[in-house]
Amino acid sequence: MGLTKPFLDTISTESTRGPLNLITDVPGVSVGQTTFNSGTHHTGITVVKPTDDNVFLNKLPAAAHVINGFGKSTGLVQINELGTLETPIVLTNTFAVGTAETALAETMMAENPAIGDTTSTVNPVIMECNDGDINDIRDVFITKKDVLNTLHQTSQTVAEGTVGAGVGMSCYDLKGGIGSASRVINIDGKPFTMGALVLSNYGFLRDLNIYNVPVGEKLATDKAEKRQKEKGSIVTVLATDIPFNSRQLTRIAKRASVGITRTGAFIGNGSGEIVLAFSTANRVAHYPKTELTAQTAITDDKIDRYFRMTVSVVEEAILSVLTHATTVTDRKGNPRLSLHDALQAYQAEHADPEVARLQAQLGI
Amino acid sequence: MGLTKPFLDTISTESTRGPLNLITDVPGVSVGQTTFNSGTHHTGITVVKPTDDNVFLNKLPAAAHVINGFGKSTGLVQINELGTLETPIVLTNTFAVGTAETALAETMMAENPAIGDTTSTVNPVIMECNDGDINDIRDVFITKKDVLNTLHQTSQTVAEGTVGAGVGMSCYDLKGGIGSASRVINIDGKPFTMGALVLSNYGFLRDLNIYNVPVGEKLATDKAEKRQKEKGSIVTVLATDIPFNSRQLTRIAKRASVGITRTGAFIGNGSGEIVLAFSTANRVAHYPKTELTAQTAITDDKIDRYFRMTVSVVEEAILSVLTHATTVTDRKGNPRLSLHDALQAYQAEHADPEVARLQAQLGI
Amino acid sequence: MGLTKPFLDTISTESTRGPLNLITDVPGVSVGQTTFNSGTHHTGITVVKPTDDNVFLNKLPAAAHVINGFGKSTGLVQINELGTLETPIVLTNTFAVGTAETALAETMMAENPAIGDTTSTVNPVIMECNDGDINDIRDVFITKKDVLNTLHQTSQTVAEGTVGAGVGMSCYDLKGGIGSASRVINIDGKPFTMGALVLSNYGFLRDLNIYNVPVGEKLATDKAEKRQKEKGSIVTVLATDIPFNSRQLTRIAKRASVGITRTGAFIGNGSGEIVLAFSTANRVAHYPKTELTAQTAITDDKIDRYFRMTVSVVEEAILSVLTHATTVTDRKGNPRLSLHDALQAYQAEHADPEVARLQAQLGI
Amino acid sequence: MGLTKPFLDTISTESTRGPLNLITDVPGVSVGQTTFNSGTHHTGITVVKPTDDNVFLNKLPAAAHVINGFGKSTGLVQINELGTLETPIVLTNTFAVGTAETALAETMMAENPAIGDTTSTVNPVIMECNDGDINDIRDVFITKKDVLNTLHQTSQTVAEGTVGAGVGMSCYDLKGGIGSASRVINIDGKPFTMGALVLSNYGFLRDLNIYNVPVGEKLATDKAEKRQKEKGSIVTVLATDIPFNSRQLTRIAKRASVGITRTGAFIGNGSGEIVLAFSTANRVAHYPKTELTAQTAITDDKIDRYFRMTVSVVEEAILSVLTHATTVTDRKGNPRLSLHDALQAYQAEHADPEVARLQAQLGI
Repeated sequence: MGLTKPFLDTISTESTRGPLNLITDVPGVSVGQTTFNSGTHHTGITVVKPTDDNVFLNKLPAAAHVINGFGKSTGLVQINELGTLETPIVLTNTFAVGTAETALAETMMAENPAIGDTTSTVNPVIMECNDGDINDIRDVFITKKDVLNTLHQTSQTVAEGTVGAGVGMSCYDLKGGIGSASRVINIDGKPFTMGALVLSNYGFLRDLNIYNVPVGEKLATDKAEKRQKEKGSIVTVLATDIPFNSRQLTRIAKRASVGITRTGAFIGNGSGEIVLAFSTANRVAHYPKTELTAQTAITDDKIDRYFRMTVSVVEEAILSVLTHATTVTDRKGNPRLSLHDALQAYQAEHADPEVARLQAQLGI
Repeated sequence: MGLTKPFLDTISTESTRGPLNLITDVPGVSVGQTTFNSGTHHTGITVVKPTDDNVFLNKLPAAAHVINGFGKSTGLVQINELGTLETPIVLTNTFAVGTAETALAETMMAENPAIGDTTSTVNPVIMECNDGDINDIRDVFITKKDVLNTLHQTSQTVAEGTVGAGVGMSCYDLKGGIGSASRVINIDGKPFTMGALVLSNYGFLRDLNIYNVPVGEKLATDKAEKRQKEKGSIVTVLATDIPFNSRQLTRIAKRASVGITRTGAFIGNGSGEIVLAFSTANRVAHYPKTELTAQTAITDDKIDRYFRMTVSVVEEAILSVLTHATTVTDRKGNPRLSLHDALQAYQAEHADPEVARLQAQLGI
Repeated sequence: MGLTKPFLDTISTESTRGPLNLITDVPGVSVGQTTFNSGTHHTGITVVKPTDDNVFLNKLPAAAHVINGFGKSTGLVQINELGTLETPIVLTNTFAVGTAETALAETMMAENPAIGDTTSTVNPVIMECNDGDINDIRDVFITKKDVLNTLHQTSQTVAEGTVGAGVGMSCYDLKGGIGSASRVINIDGKPFTMGALVLSNYGFLRDLNIYNVPVGEKLATDKAEKRQKEKGSIVTVLATDIPFNSRQLTRIAKRASVGITRTGAFIGNGSGEIVLAFSTANRVAHYPKTELTAQTAITDDKIDRYFRMTVSVVEEAILSVLTHATTVTDRKGNPRLSLHDALQAYQAEHADPEVARLQAQLGI
Repeated sequence: MGLTKPFLDTISTESTRGPLNLITDVPGVSVGQTTFNSGTHHTGITVVKPTDDNVFLNKLPAAAHVINGFGKSTGLVQINELGTLETPIVLTNTFAVGTAETALAETMMAENPAIGDTTSTVNPVIMECNDGDINDIRDVFITKKDVLNTLHQTSQTVAEGTVGAGVGMSCYDLKGGIGSASRVINIDGKPFTMGALVLSNYGFLRDLNIYNVPVGEKLATDKAEKRQKEKGSIVTVLATDIPFNSRQLTRIAKRASVGITRTGAFIGNGSGEIVLAFSTANRVAHYPKTELTAQTAITDDKIDRYFRMTVSVVEEAILSVLTHATTVTDRKGNPRLSLHDALQAYQAEHADPEVARLQAQLGI
């Protein structure tokens, strides 16, 4: 659903929110999530299924962009070589990547008996962040069955905040997690959609800036922030039915970093910031019938408005994380405050009108 | 000199301004500029000389990063392969690149009789923006002699704004040009410096945001902005005596994009955004005496504070462009307003207290 | 042991074979292998342990190079960002990657209680080829315990051919697998070593050329080769105690492709050709005590002889695969001939003197 | 014309020579050359004009690949970002790059009054090698007029060997220069063409291997080769009317390196090895009329035979350089022998039957 209040969009004036304001506004895209949130286990799985048919047989143009490579996502090498996505995308914690990879490979094999037999193997895409501040990540808790279940239970609904892969994530030292938003734009009179889903685990509190309010600085001063080193990450999935080719999707993916830094971050050393973008407009057949195929594409000359749309949808998805996430107790028994709760506590003492305005604008 | 008023730094608390607040605070770095600003000629040359000795014989670790590649800079291929800079850097307009390249090659040959005779050739680095909105760029006006003169007249002084290669440049549709700033940081008890020099020709007015004031939106609404397509660019030169190796300089260079987008831009399609970073701390001998050499380097584990410093110095350099640039009459006889003049005009009508505060903070 | 007969080296005259002629000639490097070779299971695990101490605490400069990205190796993103290797390297079949990743992460956690608790996570490096032509790869047979056992049983011995991860691999449509070789070179009077280990699963029979004998063409004509599409891969691990930095290791890694194509291949679409190179000469502390460290490095100016050495050691490692591999019966009951057996059969009919000479030169 | 005798093609069995066996077999492609070969001036210009209409208004999908980046080619940054070529390609010596860039920019402006006025600037592509061993490269002899003349005198004829930009080039320490070849392949029943033009200035004599004859080793032993350091380069231009998109052209361009190393080279440190590939099958409008366009493309799944074709056409183009080049007297008065003359001299003494066979096969 993105923000409950209208996003104050200062970058993209030509696009509007999609009906659900979720990545699932892109036709065919569905999302599944499994949440573990008890004891020292604060972790989970989020799956983005890019099409409702067999994506291995009819692949999608795709591109991956590494903003900062302190990350363990898999599948990017082949996406960059061939420019195609051929599996759902699984998001989870860093140490569940292997389990998720095995589960996703098995699902693909089950749906495609030819894989590994009469045709090639398959390229599973797993993306991750380290939820170890909150979750006992050393206790590798997620099973293959958990991943398989999540893969088979996708829908158009996307819960946000402290959910799925986002349960144990932090964002600007506040509670992070899953966020999503979408934009619709008209091309030659027809509506096209771009959706973002982020797994947000990055940033230092003192840098947080929302709607021109340096809210992080206010909160950090108050709380005498001590953390010095980035151990976070942010994974961004961009889905669209706009006919970008893979080179253009790389360019689109690069603009996600503008959305990410617009709330104040500087891309820390320890942050794995990876963007995966795909388009459902053209399909690439696994068994092509002809050598030549016709593909529709946007002209780069007109691409600026899509760049703006990308920045906008990523920025809202991140704010959506912050506004939907709820306070959790971390593995050491300390609370990791939601933005909502942090602002409440701050206001109890400060009654800062600038913060009050922001609370109203964000609806929290 | 950077900003005349203190830069309101929200990203780098560990670094302070250098004594000159210019790229020339880095020991050995000097800058030369030649300005043409009459009739339809609004163009020029800015040279960054990285050392005061023979940089060909003792090269510098360096890295180039392409934020968006709609640009014509030369020399980047070799820098990325070998990780070294072996010439001064010449900044000029797009169509003077060839002339500048010839002039720089000749200078290097004159200073190094071995080049092209008993040793290899040399890799001239020319960086450019398109000043064609203001300058009659089709009239290729700059001569080899102009470039040679500029190369031979470098000093620690750096004029900013409408000067050198920046004469005909725009920034957020206002008058752009040259800007510089520097930062000092302590490492193991000793001060080290990083300086930035930008040639700023990018951005759309409506996106401009300074110190959390959406000043571009205010001005753009007022002026019914019509420009739709980015034809700009921004070239950033980062100099430092911090001992980064070339891989680390790539990481540093990438953070320049955060500084660039912090004032509101989204990295347009037509923008050539290139960053060149070099370190003077280690030298790479053209004629090495031994196969093995020892090089000092920062550990990546501690690199965050240098990332912050980079964002900060680039952001100030861009604001320095905007505050130093003066209104010019473009090749079609229309004024290209400086930020100063645009704000004055706006305030004459609106008397906006937020803008008044910003004017005071910027000292314009 | 590499080739049993002297390698006819036409590219590197300054280097000589190491004492074992194995990657384990590089001090500290050890290898472990587990082999499954019965029924339809023809697969296994090969581990390269880069140091005999804790590589997480004292990381190694490293670089990955993707020759062709139709592959599923993990860990490359972080290696390229940080330029360091912090785990052993596990080679296995494509669908065992997830299991191997989980096992390697667990091993690293067991050895380093701080991982995922008080410090960051860890970046497991798994490399793979598709052994599905010979092995029933859909039956994901390898367990976490198998990988853990292999990780804990490394030594200086390296069996070659149909062994470890190489059991089910093909090479130029003949039996492929594991191969290794090493080279020693003098630098400033002291010996330094480079070793290669390849998992070789690439190439079309008709392209095979050894010692200027187009042996593939001879064999292919004879056997009416029918395979049209590359489904193979080749993974190359390069270890050295020569002090290359990570940028230089990238350059070294790129030369592996010359070694790979010298036996006739053209880098097919479906081939995942990945090179991982590391140097044990400098260590990068996980907990650095100072911000500045001194690192020894080769000068690029003298790097040609190391490029030649790289080409040479990779070429011999590939020939070593072909000469050590033994015929296996594939999952469909057909023999996959070793080069030895294929040449024997050919000679029984043709008695070609050129082939006879080659057999003698290769000692098969 | 490529080789005068049939090329012994061991890599591409599905393609045949084009009618001219030149890059100009690709419809629309023409070549112009200017040669300076007297006194100490042994240099020149070679132009590849990619279309016979206005390539700026209707750009071509293109890609650049850097095999080794010790080179000074210009224009690659923008090609990699936008995936298009919008000018002819000028090849010349390293120090004439600036002059060529200015000349090419002027030509483009003359043909397109909008450039730098109502539309963007233009991205000139200049590629180079260092002919300084033979030519007095420090005497920058080539003028803007020379380049302009060459740009205006292109045709389907391509002289090879010691001509144009190739006059002063070396190849495997023998006389190098310009070479070209072409291949025709059938797609869905229709013929399509790929052509290569190389400016070949790379390699060490002792490494040269032609048709499985280690001819370089024979000649080098004889002549006591002394050169130790690569100062060469090889620039490859690949033209085709096969509808590859820019990502695919990158993959095609990478296979040029296989063709280059098949004659024995190892990609030396000092070698600038750059490949530029373009396709004339789809055009990218500078002034697009619609946002969406349809583009034909090959499927990657079938790309292997085009990879083979690329390797083949590049290998023949290099052999064509060696067989067409004629002995020149270098700037110091020493002869730089052609392969023809070197083999003649060798045979006068050795009468080696293997060499005699090679001479016959090459027709020299």
